[in-house]
Amino acid sequence: MEQFQFYSPTEFVFGKEKENEAGRLVKKWGGSKVLIHYGGESAKKSGLLDRVAASLKAKGISYVTLGGVKPNPRDTLVREGIALCRAEGVDFILAIGGGSVIDSSKAISGGFYYDGDFWDLYEKKSPLTKTIPIGTVLTIAAAGSEGSGSSVITKEDGLLKRCLTSDLYRPKFSILNPELTYTLPAYQTACGITDIMAHIFERYFTTSTDVECTDRLCEALLLTMIKEGPVAVKNPTDYGARANIMWAGTVAHNDIIGSGRKQDWNSHGLEHELSGLYDCAHGAGLAVIMPAWMEYVYSENVMRFCEAATRVWGIPMDFEHPEKTAVAGIHAFKDFLTGIGMPVSFKEIGARKEDIPVLVEKLGIGDGTRAGFKTLNRDDVTAIYELAARE
Amino acid sequence: MEQFQFYSPTEFVFGKEKENEAGRLVKKWGGSKVLIHYGGESAKKSGLLDRVAASLKAKGISYVTLGGVKPNPRDTLVREGIALCRAEGVDFILAIGGGSVIDSSKAISGGFYYDGDFWDLYEKKSPLTKTIPIGTVLTIAAAGSEGSGSSVITKEDGLLKRCLTSDLYRPKFSILNPELTYTLPAYQTACGITDIMAHIFERYFTTSTDVECTDRLCEALLLTMIKEGPVAVKNPTDYGARANIMWAGTVAHNDIIGSGRKQDWNSHGLEHELSGLYDCAHGAGLAVIMPAWMEYVYSENVMRFCEAATRVWGIPMDFEHPEKTAVAGIHAFKDFLTGIGMPVSFKEIGARKEDIPVLVEKLGIGDGTRAGFKTLNRDDVTAIYELAARE
Repeated sequence: MEQFQFYSPTEFVFGKEKENEAGRLVKKWGGSKVLIHYGGESAKKSGLLDRVAASLKAKGISYVTLGGVKPNPRDTLVREGIALCRAEGVDFILAIGGGSVIDSSKAISGGFYYDGDFWDLYEKKSPLTKTIPIGTVLTIAAAGSEGSGSSVITKEDGLLKRCLTSDLYRPKFSILNPELTYTLPAYQTACGITDIMAHIFERYFTTSTDVECTDRLCEALLLTMIKEGPVAVKNPTDYGARANIMWAGTVAHNDIIGSGRKQDWNSHGLEHELSGLYDCAHGAGLAVIMPAWMEYVYSENVMRFCEAATRVWGIPMDFEHPEKTAVAGIHAFKDFLTGIGMPVSFKEIGARKEDIPVLVEKLGIGDGTRAGFKTLNRDDVTAIYELAARE
Repeated sequence: MEQFQFYSPTEFVFGKEKENEAGRLVKKWGGSKVLIHYGGESAKKSGLLDRVAASLKAKGISYVTLGGVKPNPRDTLVREGIALCRAEGVDFILAIGGGSVIDSSKAISGGFYYDGDFWDLYEKKSPLTKTIPIGTVLTIAAAGSEGSGSSVITKEDGLLKRCLTSDLYRPKFSILNPELTYTLPAYQTACGITDIMAHIFERYFTTSTDVECTDRLCEALLLTMIKEGPVAVKNPTDYGARANIMWAGTVAHNDIIGSGRKQDWNSHGLEHELSGLYDCAHGAGLAVIMPAWMEYVYSENVMRFCEAATRVWGIPMDFEHPEKTAVAGIHAFKDFLTGIGMPVSFKEIGARKEDIPVLVEKLGIGDGTRAGFKTLNRDDVTAIYELAARE
């Protein structure tokens, strides 16, 4: 087990109708003038925005609103949010939505106190040192941003995707009401399930040894997704399935299951270029990349893939041919993804084989390598994209 | 899944030699005058106390010390600690030890700001409203107090044991260095393992439904203990085993695995009277009580005990006679405890069958009941003690 620091100070408030406690929680965490940040019209139409606004008013908290966050949230709206917060004297940001809205809120909270352009922080030209506190009302179980210190923003100009991680980005509170996810279409639900499983696998496939505790915790969450995922896709108003997926999604990414492990994150890296270039859903891009990555890297440590195959997918161990067990586990994952309606090839997300050199170029790997379960160079990432591009 | 609030703001710093960061962490969390609270001479002799003190000095932090915390920590030393902290203007308490030292530190931190006698807080006569911040350097993986909001104190007069739980009691930071547990004797190691497993089972055996995520997380930690526990008992300097046990012990009790579940805690309740009366180790008392409790209650929900038997103990499901599977799981747990050197009967811990009426009396159940996986009345708790008292 590696040495680690783990700090997850977010207060999670989970259950039906908990969005009505937003006012109480903002007050508790020191907010008096709030920016409500959200995405499309659904938060308005469903009445969610009104309920949250009413709960703020009931506590005497004033607010301004900024909607329009898109999937793969853009730098342009972040700048608009920073300007609005400064003009209005905002001291707390309340994100109502999924990962994109929360990530955009984090970027605004970090840019607020930064003198230059906030994109510097994402380019690591300058360190993040101060943020406005944020809270969230989660509407999609997927990104885990409600409990994590990460934020991923896409630069409109050139469609560059960059991630910034800091404990300063961890929300003060997150409200998780599984009922708010009832109206998600099956495809978005499945994208969320895929994203959650990817967050687990990125941690599971490690070069660290003696990590039984977090191995088992990773497997616990994967088994939960395997049981509950298909239920939620088929029956969107199954509270138990929605609730288990929602909590698993948060625990999968607040990093408790990654503590003491070297992590991979190359599938996320390779995917970011896909959703950056084609604007596909992040979960869909991951469904395409992850099995290809697994196929390419499993021979680095066949036994770890056997562990996943037997403990997660219930495949009997073939002691004579362990690699067959390993590969069967990868196929089981691919079949699971197909079963919940996810794409598993370039074609299905509108990606093109001939763009691979562009993807590799945008990844910025150059003559260098990316660390991980297997260290990848330019040829390796090209080969993984090619596996994903097979017809 | 039940509604819940989960808040675990403790910063965990895990790895070899991390006790040398105590000064940095106390400073980060606002301490300038520290009470170092500890147990016996081992913290001194091992040099641990000196290393921590040096790390405080290096950051310009002054301190006073108070040792002498015993297992099942007493109210008398807590009062001494409160008086010392007031006299010396202490603003941060650093616990060096295991659950007893940390629980005693919490009691001092809560009593400091309370005008009356601190025992009022534990009798729930007055609410806990303010505490001095505390940090911990953990030396035993067992109680989970390093990440929990709980504190259990024993009143010298009458040997009454009472528990107080509050988010205010959660440590600001906890330093976890698995190497500090190398010198624990096998018996104490096994007591810790038992305590950790009890913390998991108390949450696992629930009347809540649709809790797959936390079921799986509980099972993950139990599987970790089953693998790593016997290794640490046999080879006390196995870093991997010590590290996995230490982190599992913390995760088992910061309540992430209990979120959204009704919990039981009757085994702990019944045990507290045992260690209160006979001053046996808490873990030893639990090893005696838990299997008896399981035997007495499993028929309330045979399927849940089958889940434990199959998923945790690897027992094949007997679909014709599920109760046989359930009972086999309980026997497997008892065998595991015996295997790591734990007592499993009254006699082995010096408890006497004829004291059962006294134990029941001290439990204070009267004509009432205790809620849980099975609601227990006076006759039920008597029957459980009697099962534990079998020769």
